[in-house]
Amino acid sequence: MNVLIVYAHPEPRSLNGALRDFAVERLRAGGHAVQVSDLYAMQWKATLDAADNTAFEAGGRFDASEESRRAFMNGTQSADIAAEQDKLRWADTVILQFPLWWFSMPAILKGWIERVYAYGFAYGVGEHSDSHWGDRYGEGTMAGKRAMLVVTTGGWDSHYASRGINGSINDILFPIQHGTLFYPGFDVLPPHVIYRSGKIDDANFGEVASALGQRLDALERTEPIPFRKQNHGDYEIPALTLKPGLGAGRTGLAIHLQDGAADA
Amino acid sequence: MNVLIVYAHPEPRSLNGALRDFAVERLRAGGHAVQVSDLYAMQWKATLDAADNTAFEAGGRFDASEESRRAFMNGTQSADIAAEQDKLRWADTVILQFPLWWFSMPAILKGWIERVYAYGFAYGVGEHSDSHWGDRYGEGTMAGKRAMLVVTTGGWDSHYASRGINGSINDILFPIQHGTLFYPGFDVLPPHVIYRSGKIDDANFGEVASALGQRLDALERTEPIPFRKQNHGDYEIPALTLKPGLGAGRTGLAIHLQDGAADA
Repeated sequence: MNVLIVYAHPEPRSLNGALRDFAVERLRAGGHAVQVSDLYAMQWKATLDAADNTAFEAGGRFDASEESRRAFMNGTQSADIAAEQDKLRWADTVILQFPLWWFSMPAILKGWIERVYAYGFAYGVGEHSDSHWGDRYGEGTMAGKRAMLVVTTGGWDSHYASRGINGSINDILFPIQHGTLFYPGFDVLPPHVIYRSGKIDDANFGEVASALGQRLDALERTEPIPFRKQNHGDYEIPALTLKPGLGAGRTGLAIHLQDGAADA
Repeated sequence: MNVLIVYAHPEPRSLNGALRDFAVERLRAGGHAVQVSDLYAMQWKATLDAADNTAFEAGGRFDASEESRRAFMNGTQSADIAAEQDKLRWADTVILQFPLWWFSMPAILKGWIERVYAYGFAYGVGEHSDSHWGDRYGEGTMAGKRAMLVVTTGGWDSHYASRGINGSINDILFPIQHGTLFYPGFDVLPPHVIYRSGKIDDANFGEVASALGQRLDALERTEPIPFRKQNHGDYEIPALTLKPGLGAGRTGLAIHLQDGAADA
């Protein structure tokens, strides 16, 4: 496999840094090619703005989608954006690795998504019609590729369980897993979440790494989260609501899992 | 009231810019004091790093929480962070206004949360014990203040309805509303969401502004989303799971709404 790890942590001498190094070594030992986008080390510009289109007419009104569309189409994207898109094309497997800060991605990684996911690349792809609302949610540029989150959090697993106060982890991660990975077409593997990150030290790092290692070894054969594809008949188009009768027995965000599939 | 609007859009000549200007005028006409943190105009540094503690020992290992704790306690936070905290102390009402990008806040606003919400200010507040897991989720520094999201999205309201493919809007916004506003103690008002933002032009801007205006006029008397407080007996401590028997009749993230309260 060609694995791209998009990694967002400011300190190499951290749990995340150690896990990232471990992951790279494990994947290469398994015969895979690995690239890492270390966003902090790259001093990744998190903020989407007019500079992202090198041909932007100064003084003009900046419409983020329109400028993204033009820049992608005309090849005038800033070099850092184009380089990341090339890595995504090269990869068949993408891992987003980050500490869960305030229940979502660190800003630098959100900024990677926002700037790299250009119009015509990650959205605004495919036809709109009465039966097909763009190539997205299971279709799109990333179709055929797989993606997985590796997330650390200081909280306990019970805090993120189905009745945990932070919200169940699958619900908290839904905007990312469904909204930024499944959306452009990735098959999304169940996340690897590492709880009580503050309590991991030299003594127990080995078992934490071992558990991650097992997930990495299994990347090619792990069953993806069975999200429903948008254009395969489960949703009314263009209302995009789940058709009546589907999702019986499931509630909340879980209705977007295919009927008959095991809970993710 | 003292209203702080934290605003995240790159273009003044946008729908968001026009709504922001409208909101400031409407609130001031209502006799309120208003401050705006226009993050793009401020060139807000989105990326949390060692520079956020001016006393950080160069070359040392950067532990984000630890450096935040020290900087807040010792008064060595970078000036931009301290200034925003002063605005939050001044405010009794906070509005976060942003376009929904990839189902969450723009990176620049996520970076405002991450850098301004220091240890000892927004988290790491209050005692930990068998019955009290810190002052959070309805308690904390922001207790007594109210907060509301004003969110624009290109999608339709049906796309974010209870069976909409993007996920129901309350679930999509839960990590923000529950995790970043209720968490430090705000009463969180129901969000004001503006759908089909791409179809708003001079002709229909008036009615869009009018609807926002009504929400702004009602800020002081609007019932907050009835989230359950963490330390008031509904959750087992320290597992932080909702006690058995509570939340009957609700599912998914809605179990964190108080029993007997209307659905948010």
